[in-house]
Amino acid sequence: MNKFLDEDFLLYSKTAQRLYHEYAKGMPIIDYHCHLPPDQIANDHQFENITQAWLYGDHYKWRAMRTNGVNESYITGNRTDREKFEKWAETVPYTLRNPLYHWTHLELQRYFGITELLNKNTAADVYEAASAQMQTPQYSVRSLLRKMNVRVVCTTDDPIDSLEHHKKLAGDDFDVKILPAFRPDKAMNVDDVSAFNQYLGQLESVTDISIHKFDDYLYALKQRHDYFAANGCSVSDHGLEQLYADDYTEAEIKTIFNKARCGMVLTHAENCQFKSAMLHQFAVWDWERGWVQQYHLGALRNNNTRLLRQLGPDTGLDSIGDFPQGKALSRFLDKLDNKDQLTKTILYNLNPADNELFAAMIGNFNDGSVPGKMQFGSGWWFLDQKDGMTKQINALSNMGLLSRFVGMLTDSRSFLSFPRHEYFRRVLCNILGSEMESGELPNDLELVGSMVQDICYNNAANYFNWQEAGTTVPAAAAS
Amino acid sequence: MNKFLDEDFLLYSKTAQRLYHEYAKGMPIIDYHCHLPPDQIANDHQFENITQAWLYGDHYKWRAMRTNGVNESYITGNRTDREKFEKWAETVPYTLRNPLYHWTHLELQRYFGITELLNKNTAADVYEAASAQMQTPQYSVRSLLRKMNVRVVCTTDDPIDSLEHHKKLAGDDFDVKILPAFRPDKAMNVDDVSAFNQYLGQLESVTDISIHKFDDYLYALKQRHDYFAANGCSVSDHGLEQLYADDYTEAEIKTIFNKARCGMVLTHAENCQFKSAMLHQFAVWDWERGWVQQYHLGALRNNNTRLLRQLGPDTGLDSIGDFPQGKALSRFLDKLDNKDQLTKTILYNLNPADNELFAAMIGNFNDGSVPGKMQFGSGWWFLDQKDGMTKQINALSNMGLLSRFVGMLTDSRSFLSFPRHEYFRRVLCNILGSEMESGELPNDLELVGSMVQDICYNNAANYFNWQEAGTTVPAAAAS
Amino acid sequence: MNKFLDEDFLLYSKTAQRLYHEYAKGMPIIDYHCHLPPDQIANDHQFENITQAWLYGDHYKWRAMRTNGVNESYITGNRTDREKFEKWAETVPYTLRNPLYHWTHLELQRYFGITELLNKNTAADVYEAASAQMQTPQYSVRSLLRKMNVRVVCTTDDPIDSLEHHKKLAGDDFDVKILPAFRPDKAMNVDDVSAFNQYLGQLESVTDISIHKFDDYLYALKQRHDYFAANGCSVSDHGLEQLYADDYTEAEIKTIFNKARCGMVLTHAENCQFKSAMLHQFAVWDWERGWVQQYHLGALRNNNTRLLRQLGPDTGLDSIGDFPQGKALSRFLDKLDNKDQLTKTILYNLNPADNELFAAMIGNFNDGSVPGKMQFGSGWWFLDQKDGMTKQINALSNMGLLSRFVGMLTDSRSFLSFPRHEYFRRVLCNILGSEMESGELPNDLELVGSMVQDICYNNAANYFNWQEAGTTVPAAAAS
Repeated sequence: MNKFLDEDFLLYSKTAQRLYHEYAKGMPIIDYHCHLPPDQIANDHQFENITQAWLYGDHYKWRAMRTNGVNESYITGNRTDREKFEKWAETVPYTLRNPLYHWTHLELQRYFGITELLNKNTAADVYEAASAQMQTPQYSVRSLLRKMNVRVVCTTDDPIDSLEHHKKLAGDDFDVKILPAFRPDKAMNVDDVSAFNQYLGQLESVTDISIHKFDDYLYALKQRHDYFAANGCSVSDHGLEQLYADDYTEAEIKTIFNKARCGMVLTHAENCQFKSAMLHQFAVWDWERGWVQQYHLGALRNNNTRLLRQLGPDTGLDSIGDFPQGKALSRFLDKLDNKDQLTKTILYNLNPADNELFAAMIGNFNDGSVPGKMQFGSGWWFLDQKDGMTKQINALSNMGLLSRFVGMLTDSRSFLSFPRHEYFRRVLCNILGSEMESGELPNDLELVGSMVQDICYNNAANYFNWQEAGTTVPAAAAS
Repeated sequence: MNKFLDEDFLLYSKTAQRLYHEYAKGMPIIDYHCHLPPDQIANDHQFENITQAWLYGDHYKWRAMRTNGVNESYITGNRTDREKFEKWAETVPYTLRNPLYHWTHLELQRYFGITELLNKNTAADVYEAASAQMQTPQYSVRSLLRKMNVRVVCTTDDPIDSLEHHKKLAGDDFDVKILPAFRPDKAMNVDDVSAFNQYLGQLESVTDISIHKFDDYLYALKQRHDYFAANGCSVSDHGLEQLYADDYTEAEIKTIFNKARCGMVLTHAENCQFKSAMLHQFAVWDWERGWVQQYHLGALRNNNTRLLRQLGPDTGLDSIGDFPQGKALSRFLDKLDNKDQLTKTILYNLNPADNELFAAMIGNFNDGSVPGKMQFGSGWWFLDQKDGMTKQINALSNMGLLSRFVGMLTDSRSFLSFPRHEYFRRVLCNILGSEMESGELPNDLELVGSMVQDICYNNAANYFNWQEAGTTVPAAAAS
Repeated sequence: MNKFLDEDFLLYSKTAQRLYHEYAKGMPIIDYHCHLPPDQIANDHQFENITQAWLYGDHYKWRAMRTNGVNESYITGNRTDREKFEKWAETVPYTLRNPLYHWTHLELQRYFGITELLNKNTAADVYEAASAQMQTPQYSVRSLLRKMNVRVVCTTDDPIDSLEHHKKLAGDDFDVKILPAFRPDKAMNVDDVSAFNQYLGQLESVTDISIHKFDDYLYALKQRHDYFAANGCSVSDHGLEQLYADDYTEAEIKTIFNKARCGMVLTHAENCQFKSAMLHQFAVWDWERGWVQQYHLGALRNNNTRLLRQLGPDTGLDSIGDFPQGKALSRFLDKLDNKDQLTKTILYNLNPADNELFAAMIGNFNDGSVPGKMQFGSGWWFLDQKDGMTKQINALSNMGLLSRFVGMLTDSRSFLSFPRHEYFRRVLCNILGSEMESGELPNDLELVGSMVQDICYNNAANYFNWQEAGTTVPAAAAS
């Protein structure tokens, strides 16, 4: 009988425990994709209470509360922070077996030293104790990052973003590297022509370039790509239902752009062609710069129109789609590879039914140039839990080389979510330790331990060329 | 070394055993969806032998026998009941690892106290012993339901059904509530225009309404919906490959109906529009009445034309499809939710590859009005076994709130299938008990035990408003 | 703590160990589908070193090396055999948790008695030791097959193949039966009209039949089908993204053939119709002969155009697709069954998300004529590992009768890959032994042991009518 969430949480063998405590635990963190707000880091924001840090932006918790029958006024509405916390606390016991139950208590332990279980009886005490700490300088957002031994954070930024906060941070002596990532979703979203033109207007004013034709558009976007590079960016990201890799000619794309620029609604085929062209163009720019490109595929977004009207996007109204992925992924990557223009690439998959497809796909485009050039990204969003992580690790292990994996990222909006790296490391060490004891892996702690350290930190440091941010831990001495 | 199918069957930890024996075992059963024949309950039918109760309608067993090389004459043909039983008995040892092996011996134990393994050597003894019991009053169908501590049974009925048996049952003092469910599959099935018109003829004669136009049709169907409500129905059900949520106008649907009413074959697009319109209409009626609506999605039916000709539908010729589910599910539910017309809904999924999609989808439409308003239904049909149940429980746990789950149902045509509730409870308790011992869940027997009781019974009683049928067990006191 | 890859490798209970060592281990091997080169068997080829036998044709290893950052010159290029081996040896420690890590060390142990772990430090020793053995007569390819207790091997052959090597082998007194299999992929591949016509030219010269019209084509192909039968063939095979079962008329197919014969490019619909017609025709011929037909479904091939140009097909550029499978599978099999023309059939699935679909589909067409007439084939290609085997075994167990399964095959191009049968047997025995100890299966070693022997050998011997090749082990005495 193990104690809930004790120091050997999720570590079910002596070897797993040694792998975690002796090899994984001490490794620093590279969070190469997340949604932390750069302004709060730049200003070293201080939250007034635990609700602000925990509940203001966490749509995972919102969905759980809605499912538990909690009225929206306590979730996103005008109730007080204390009332919202109480409703969350009442919901927590109903989240047993949901990752929220683990995240919640892991975060209470790691950040606040609170080991009580959260529920309606303990709500008041926990609220007071955690909020009191939140108000101290040791809980400013920069302190929270330091506390978790974070070395690099990549935010997620629109091409029109000024990057003012990143600039400020670059000037400060903050020892965590905060870098922007180029996420041009809106720049290819011609489904909504009116929003697209509005976006073009913003791009015009940011770049001071008049955008009449497609060439103007590319020119303006390229300015922003260069600008991001000049400000330390070396990573792009895309959030898509699926990749687009339709055939098109330059002439067709110009015509489509002109139509959209005049506010004319495009056909479905035109939409797909335009997205195909833009995605390809972005990928070529990324390759020219040697960036890492990331694709988050498979989300079915904005399912609930009523709440979307009320709350806007990213408020818990998204879920998992069943889009065809194989052929377009293949065509998209092949077109780039065929001209030697395929840069390092991470593919994230939201529907676990497609895990093996993704894990096998990357093998077609690994070309011997860089170890692990093509990556199957870690369990993401709804899959960011033990089961999802395990399935991703298994698919990657079986179809590719786990040892070359760049590992975990938070993908989070919360400064309190970094124990997810710990969670991933425990899951990883448990899998490996268990197989060392069963005889499926050699019982060689140095060999497997160095693999663990690679996946926790070294692989990402090498892959993204952020070694200087790192520790002195050597690359895996697989022998 | 555990004994096969002993009292701790499927319970692999002390805590799992305590959860099952102290919390789950004694809970009564609400079987909120099944295919039991109401006439047999109304007449308190008595089977002459075990073959009639076990093999006459069980296409699971038929498929296993066909796979094992048994001639159809012993399955659905004119062999004697004894001969059929012998062939089944010979097949049983070949079903090792199939759920049939467990169901078979669990049913022999629970109903007949027979602990011998069934095979060709024991066939004669088992046939005699079980058949002799079947002929006693303690084995009438009502007795069989009582024996299993069943409180509510929902049958599955066509809108044109007279519900005469349900009426008779309502008048009797039978202590198990037998309620109808409204399943209008035929009322939207315009793929076969001739069968559709035949159905309309039956509807005309049942309602005494002449159906010329679409409005007549809706009016007649609504009469039946009201009639079902008046006879205790509060649950609808639909069996579909996938949901339909195409755009349509009222005028289009009227035109399509007129075409079909004249016997003209519809286009695929018209088919889909008509189904979209009918499904939406049924859902609105269900919402007006506060019913629970159920959708069974993903079956690929009637695959074998030769046997279908010979035996008709529901004879073991169905299997699992790979239909796209995401977008239509989202559109269908959103259209209802957007006008505040979405009633409590249970989605059942037949292809386990879509489990995560379903489990994540319900989260978009939980609105805080009722705990667990949107439900991801239990492992169904081919998935109604340990592996399928575990996957459903895990997907639901990871994406939603397992604690709000309304739990198990038999979906069965057999009066001997109720030990499946026991099976489900053992699987559930085993998962939870194991995680309590490993430290993934708190070691709080009261907390987890009350969650178990909720999932076994209380949640369903509250969800369907059948509390009066229940025990005095309080709702979960999660604390 | 178990030792890596010792005699109880993968066997985690006493009962599993007994099942494997007492029942499975001694069974001979029927390798009913593989890609071994018949000329090398006919000539009893002798490899000069381990690289030639291990690395020349193994695209699994190639992909791993590319992923590990190894330059193509060491993989398929002009480096020496020793250099290639060294690069592979350096890669091996990075394959931890990939099946290659197990295959590699299992093959070193079983064929060469080498128990050292392969890595850059041991590379030279292993290369010398293994290569020295490879050069002895005990390591000729025939000796390698005998060493593994192989009784039957089915190669994979194009209809235009002369089968000269099979003829030579039939005349020799080699005690392993080497049989051809009819794989007419090219005969229906009208996507590339020019390649298709080139193929027709070859067929003309092999058969001495002028092919002007579709009837000529069928006549010529039927000659080859007969010729294969005359040379011991009783198995066909097809490699397809998905089955094709579109509607067509004879007239349409003739027109389509004429178009293609004139070098005109076909529409997508014509392509599918032609493939549908050819697949159906082949299936009818197979049924007339009582052959077993096999379908390998779901591969997404030739993803990397650049490497394909350089290296040709089957060089590690294939992966897993997400093609719709359900409806076409059903229509294809139903059309045959409906005229009583459905022969014994094995369906192999490459995307594990479709496992349950496949496992349930076969149940629709088992007709009681032959036990296990319809088979869900073993985990294949990317799924040919513990995880993939387990998933296939579980899906088959839950939806069908595992006990009637024809078991494992290598599907390999390598003479050193036969320990995969051992691997499969260990996985199978472990699953069964574990459930005997937990009480999910009866603790009856004879019952389960005979099931193991059936799956390892007897079922295949009976299914393919190769009993004479067999041992004296009786068919399962399930009692």
